[in-house]
Amino acid sequence: MAVFERLTHLCFATESSATLFSPDLRPFRSFTVLILELSSIPPPYPPQQNPEFPFSEIIRTVHPVGPIEYSEAETFRSSKGGDWIVGGFALFFPNYASFLAKPGFYIEEIFVRECYRRMGFGRMLLTAVAKKAVEMGYGRVEWVVLDWNENAIRFYDEMGADILQEYRICRLTGEGLEVYGRKKKEE
Amino acid sequence: MAVFERLTHLCFATESSATLFSPDLRPFRSFTVLILELSSIPPPYPPQQNPEFPFSEIIRTVHPVGPIEYSEAETFRSSKGGDWIVGGFALFFPNYASFLAKPGFYIEEIFVRECYRRMGFGRMLLTAVAKKAVEMGYGRVEWVVLDWNENAIRFYDEMGADILQEYRICRLTGEGLEVYGRKKKEE
Repeated sequence: MAVFERLTHLCFATESSATLFSPDLRPFRSFTVLILELSSIPPPYPPQQNPEFPFSEIIRTVHPVGPIEYSEAETFRSSKGGDWIVGGFALFFPNYASFLAKPGFYIEEIFVRECYRRMGFGRMLLTAVAKKAVEMGYGRVEWVVLDWNENAIRFYDEMGADILQEYRICRLTGEGLEVYGRKKKEE
Repeated sequence: MAVFERLTHLCFATESSATLFSPDLRPFRSFTVLILELSSIPPPYPPQQNPEFPFSEIIRTVHPVGPIEYSEAETFRSSKGGDWIVGGFALFFPNYASFLAKPGFYIEEIFVRECYRRMGFGRMLLTAVAKKAVEMGYGRVEWVVLDWNENAIRFYDEMGADILQEYRICRLTGEGLEVYGRKKKEE
C-alpha cells in the first residue's frame, strides 16, 4: 500500500513491530483485518470458520477478462496452503458516534493488489465491513479519501457514502507528540 | 455539545441508549472518557484513584478572572459529591496507524461548558490524552476540526498538530448504511 501511495518514506512497519493484535483485543471490538484470498481452483471449498473469529468466510467466484497474475506468489502466500494467495485486505476498528450514541467502524485501509483490481474486490471488502456494522447495530462506517482521487470519490459515492467537505484531520505525531511525554502533569 | 454546534437535530442519544461502555471494553484500549470536574473548595484534595482505571487524577488550581458560574449545577452534579460539578470531557479511543505499525488515539470530542472556557481546560484535556498516548508508546493523536473554525485551528496549531488539507471523511450512515444489512453475502 505504501508503494502504491508513494509514501514508503513514511512507512516504518517491520515484522518485529507487531502491535496490531494482542490476546485481549477481540475481533470487531478492536483492530480487525479481513483478508482477501484467491485461488484458481473452482469451488466448492470446504467452509473454514475460525471459532475465535465471529465471521463466516465470504466465497465469490470471479471471471476475470484476462489471466490472474500470480506475481510475487511466494511473498503473498496464504496460510490456507495450496495455490491460495493474499490479494488484499481491509483493516478497520470501532469508533464512536456520540451523536448517535452508537459505535461505528472506521476503515483505516482497504487495499487490493494491482493485479487484482477492477474485479469488484474493493467493493466486496467495503460491503463486508458495512454489512457487519449493520449486523452489530452500529450507526456508521467512516474512512478517508484524498481530495484529488476522483476515481475513489466516484466509487465511494456509488457505494452510498457522503463525502464530508468541511472537516479537516488534525494530527499530533513524531516530535510534536513526543513533547507531551516530557510535560509535567499540571501543564 | 450538540447545542453548541447547533446540531441537536442530528443528536439521538438518550440515557437509555447507553452503548459507550461495557464490561469487556478496557479503558484506553477502547472508548474512554476523561471527565473535567470542578470545585470551588481549594486543594489539597484526597487523591482518588479508581483501581480499574489506569490513570491518576490530574489536579489543577485555576484563578478565574470572574466568578465561576454554577449554572445548571443540578444537571451537571459530579459523582464526587460536595460542590463538584462536571465542566467538560474528552471522549477518545484507539485507532491504528498502519504506516507507523502503532496504535494511536482518536479524539471524538473535547468539550468544555461555555461558562468554563478560556481557562485552559481544553488544553488540559488534550494534553492529558497526548501524554497518555506517549506513555503507551502510541504513534499519533488525531481529531477533526471544521475548516471555518479559525480559533480552533489556531489553538490546535499552537498545540503542535498538523492540519491535513487533502483528506476528506467518507461516511456511510442512516439508510445509506442500512441497505448493506439487506444485501446478500455474495454481492
